[in-house]
Amino acid sequence: MLITIDLQSEIPLYLQLKTQLIKGIATGELAEGEPLPSFRQLSADLGINMLTVKKTYDQLKQEGYLTMHRQKGAVVNGQLHARMTDQYVLTLKQQLAPFITEAFCYGMKKAQFTAICNALYEELEEGKEND
Amino acid sequence: MLITIDLQSEIPLYLQLKTQLIKGIATGELAEGEPLPSFRQLSADLGINMLTVKKTYDQLKQEGYLTMHRQKGAVVNGQLHARMTDQYVLTLKQQLAPFITEAFCYGMKKAQFTAICNALYEELEEGKEND
Repeated sequence: MLITIDLQSEIPLYLQLKTQLIKGIATGELAEGEPLPSFRQLSADLGINMLTVKKTYDQLKQEGYLTMHRQKGAVVNGQLHARMTDQYVLTLKQQLAPFITEAFCYGMKKAQFTAICNALYEELEEGKEND
Repeated sequence: MLITIDLQSEIPLYLQLKTQLIKGIATGELAEGEPLPSFRQLSADLGINMLTVKKTYDQLKQEGYLTMHRQKGAVVNGQLHARMTDQYVLTLKQQLAPFITEAFCYGMKKAQFTAICNALYEELEEGKEND
């Protein structure tokens, strides 16, 4: 997959990389069980610090997107669906609440909020279809 | 309005207070232009540290929910709707993207995600109607 890093952006490099890798996993561009480049390799390819890539990988491992394989190194977790527990849904609700309350305070209608979410969802769905 | 603080919760006290005050503003329980209790008063009422309440008020001021009035002290901003700019919508989209990508990775369907958002929205709408 193509990864683009914007050195001028206010978004930290590790987060830019993380967002793109998660998106790659979501759309299936990075398939389950697929090995990722070593962080040495990826940092050389992107021209960014090795520790930055390591930070991204470490977070992705911690959040369950990647698992460690003895021979292949970091691979995409094949059991991501197992993470959709009742507890996750509850946490998601708590995480979304502040954004929804803010939007509501600013006068955004439910339909507009839903439209934003749907657009983001459809972007991922299309990515998956084109894969 | 009734504010309840859970001293056992993992959620920081200032954040518990902040979430409830914003919700009060969203539902109209705290009306535009209405003065809030001084942070000395509120901290005494809730039995929490004055600096905790001050932190909440400071953040709410910074985020535009409260404005300072020479005589009344902190009052609810009457111009919240003016904050729904194109830039805000763009920021909101960026803020929601990681949550949606994560849900998508875990196999949550668009309809379920929308249902969660709608339920949160309707909670606020009902609060407003009952006001």
